[in-house]
Amino acid sequence: MAQQRFSVIYHIIGNNEAEVYQQAQDICVEQTVEYPYELLSAGFIKAEIVGKIESLRLLPDAKSYRLEISYAVETTAYELTQLLNVIFGNISLKPGILVDRLNLPDCLLEAFAGPRFGRDGLREILGVFHRPLLFAAIKPMGLSAEQLANIVYQCAVGGMDIIKDDHGLSNQIFAPFEERVRLCSEAVQRANRRTGRNSLYIPNVTGPIDKIMERSRFAKKVGAGGLLLTPGLIGLDTLRWLSQDPALALPIFSHPAFQGSYVINAAQGVGLSHYVIYGQLSRLAGADAVVYPNFGGRFSFSIAECQSIVAGTQDSMGHLKPIFPAPGGGMILERIPELMKFYGKEVLFLMGGGLFKPGRSLADNCKAFLALVEQASAGK
Amino acid sequence: MAQQRFSVIYHIIGNNEAEVYQQAQDICVEQTVEYPYELLSAGFIKAEIVGKIESLRLLPDAKSYRLEISYAVETTAYELTQLLNVIFGNISLKPGILVDRLNLPDCLLEAFAGPRFGRDGLREILGVFHRPLLFAAIKPMGLSAEQLANIVYQCAVGGMDIIKDDHGLSNQIFAPFEERVRLCSEAVQRANRRTGRNSLYIPNVTGPIDKIMERSRFAKKVGAGGLLLTPGLIGLDTLRWLSQDPALALPIFSHPAFQGSYVINAAQGVGLSHYVIYGQLSRLAGADAVVYPNFGGRFSFSIAECQSIVAGTQDSMGHLKPIFPAPGGGMILERIPELMKFYGKEVLFLMGGGLFKPGRSLADNCKAFLALVEQASAGK
Repeated sequence: MAQQRFSVIYHIIGNNEAEVYQQAQDICVEQTVEYPYELLSAGFIKAEIVGKIESLRLLPDAKSYRLEISYAVETTAYELTQLLNVIFGNISLKPGILVDRLNLPDCLLEAFAGPRFGRDGLREILGVFHRPLLFAAIKPMGLSAEQLANIVYQCAVGGMDIIKDDHGLSNQIFAPFEERVRLCSEAVQRANRRTGRNSLYIPNVTGPIDKIMERSRFAKKVGAGGLLLTPGLIGLDTLRWLSQDPALALPIFSHPAFQGSYVINAAQGVGLSHYVIYGQLSRLAGADAVVYPNFGGRFSFSIAECQSIVAGTQDSMGHLKPIFPAPGGGMILERIPELMKFYGKEVLFLMGGGLFKPGRSLADNCKAFLALVEQASAGK
Repeated sequence: MAQQRFSVIYHIIGNNEAEVYQQAQDICVEQTVEYPYELLSAGFIKAEIVGKIESLRLLPDAKSYRLEISYAVETTAYELTQLLNVIFGNISLKPGILVDRLNLPDCLLEAFAGPRFGRDGLREILGVFHRPLLFAAIKPMGLSAEQLANIVYQCAVGGMDIIKDDHGLSNQIFAPFEERVRLCSEAVQRANRRTGRNSLYIPNVTGPIDKIMERSRFAKKVGAGGLLLTPGLIGLDTLRWLSQDPALALPIFSHPAFQGSYVINAAQGVGLSHYVIYGQLSRLAGADAVVYPNFGGRFSFSIAECQSIVAGTQDSMGHLKPIFPAPGGGMILERIPELMKFYGKEVLFLMGGGLFKPGRSLADNCKAFLALVEQASAGK
């Protein structure tokens, strides 16, 4: 019985085709049967379960090869965890291998609900259609829940669409989870009554795996507008779980902390590409927006890497909705016109510390941010 | 109020002390308040919450610095996820930073139960005290549950102490989880009645986060002897959750798949050290044994890296028990004498494909493996 197959595009460092071909064969075995190939008897396992080299060609840099390997869809058990395992489980431990892109057939994509809201759904909730969405983060850690709620209020009055916990706010004694989430949710609702907008407060529910659902349900109950999750800390599949929960039905915002080791060496040909991790995998897991460090900030992503992230958030993936790229990290008001040219309107601009510039109130800084974006959007 | 602090030893690539010092200051801010330092007013947050540089000195390679930063214990909320976030969350996205070692005070360690069994506990269960423990894996993927159970039986009759699912066995149609785990558990029990030993079958329960507890309870119910988990796929905290569950109370075996990106560049000074990931973090999370690719196999770990893993599994960590290093990956019988010299008896030798060598039955290959290890142990 012939199996449906998905495929992975790997980049393999090397310039000797025979050696790279051998390595490709090793990957076909390592990621599936993990068993001496010469001991497999002819039949189903050898013919279908072992990965198959579909193509191999030298890349223009002449230092690495583009390798496509296909795998039987059934090897994944239609589980995100086992799909990741087939793609890059054991070979994450081997040097010189990059996962550049995934080709997933509909029969596999259909096993995943994907983003519940996506770009259009999030815009519907907010009622904002004509411009980039504005995203703020409350900080610093160490403030009380009341102080953080006051920041939420000021950001919402200042016109921020989405106001999230800093990703380091968990359940610290300074601002315990339930107190913080209750006060911040109340604050955004109070601001919304004043502005007539529908700004959202997004608590960070990343934490002990046995508390995440409870925290998420609490957040929903007190009126939070979405959930911030850090899949590097809790696993991509936890994101999937929460995004699919029918009682929650909240937009999911993915944070890139503790996931950097997968992409930080992508330019050197090792790990996962930005396209795969922030685009394809985040959508498979059901994120509605994915935070990542913008080019030109205090992190090291390149312009080309950020372009590939945008592509990954919107390229066709069966029934999976496009999601918002949410560049952040050292964002400042002065860069907005440049960034609007780069990103267009389908973006969520995350500004953290940049909103706390002295000389003006936080609300006034937010208003200046909104005015800049409105102006640039009108000029389009 | 002065806070208790833990510290992290980072290695920072660079040879200009002023630049590296600036980078160290950035880390102190990035991992905690993530807020412009110059805008913090004097007080608790600036004095206690922001990380503190405890020491900075050039390493002997003259290409990187050893940096110790301390953080207030309260920043972690006593959660494994948030502890990881403070240690390496955002800075995993920055180049040239390695987490070499953690210094965790008792007040933080006490928040974690750690390994339930550890080395002594696992030996008690098995009744084997005088030699390395022998660890086999059932494969290849694509076999039926019945065929896999037959492999379990042969391994147990051959004297293997612990027989685990290959880490790619999940809930595939070829060998569905419940059928496989029931048949394999029965097989090991049947073999134990014949041999008088107490060999353990360890199913892989890695899978959808909302199914893991259910699969684990099923495994316990049908008589499995422990759980195999891949924290790279489901998060370290899920391992902690299962290891602490009082109704399960099963030994936990950690598999390194999809976690390689954290250590693969450690020798280049980027990511997490082998000591931290396979030693300190695995014990914090409650693993009783940690699988990793042995030196000289088909992966790329060095002898020094394997030595540091062994140290990490047994160095003092407050009340946390020492755990078993479980080197595997291309292990063959011929290497046993060499590996026994290197590891001594406190090791779990994982042999996968090497046991399926033709010419002898699987049970006979297992017996040869056991005889070699017994012989070398008697000679000590």
